[in-house]
Amino acid sequence: MMTDCLFCKIAAGEIPSAKVYEDEEILAFRDINPQAPVHILIIPKKHVASLAEVGEEDTALLGKIQVLTRKLAEQEGVAVSGFRIVSNSGPDSGQEVGHLHYHLMGGRDLMA
Amino acid sequence: MMTDCLFCKIAAGEIPSAKVYEDEEILAFRDINPQAPVHILIIPKKHVASLAEVGEEDTALLGKIQVLTRKLAEQEGVAVSGFRIVSNSGPDSGQEVGHLHYHLMGGRDLMA
Repeated sequence: MMTDCLFCKIAAGEIPSAKVYEDEEILAFRDINPQAPVHILIIPKKHVASLAEVGEEDTALLGKIQVLTRKLAEQEGVAVSGFRIVSNSGPDSGQEVGHLHYHLMGGRDLMA
Repeated sequence: MMTDCLFCKIAAGEIPSAKVYEDEEILAFRDINPQAPVHILIIPKKHVASLAEVGEEDTALLGKIQVLTRKLAEQEGVAVSGFRIVSNSGPDSGQEVGHLHYHLMGGRDLMA
């Protein structure tokens, strides 16, 4: 855990979040500033700054997150209507929190 | 392989592409209509329609694709400046080809 990391604090339960999924390695919670009717952030509990910092040892964890996006899309009722996952890494991307996260968005026309 | 699938044909080499990475399971190639200086599509060679169709058996494959984004970002010189990965699934997302693909974009301010 990084003591100054917002998402580490959320993962540790020090800062509350609207959780939609949790296991030993992964937490998913609703974005506090949603850009779509469904806007969930999925994070590894361990601190990884971004996709630029992942290694081979993270393969299974990252794969589990991808499969989880499908499960959450179904749970939220957007698997058929459509959804998008996005992960931003570094300055050009607009990454706002320096802890790896995937946005899962759906529930509206995401091209509009 | 789905006979009417554009990306299956690219994966099989029936339609040429500007490849940047290939192994037994994964192909990465440049988008023919790039939205950024670096715009690569990463696909599983096997046909999966979208993230809405993935299962537990795809965990390792999907994890490998995530780790590959980091390697390709480094190779393309955007790991530090920043990059974004996106996967669209279904109508609301604007998914254009019905074969799972991740966009890897970088090389400019992606918030502009």
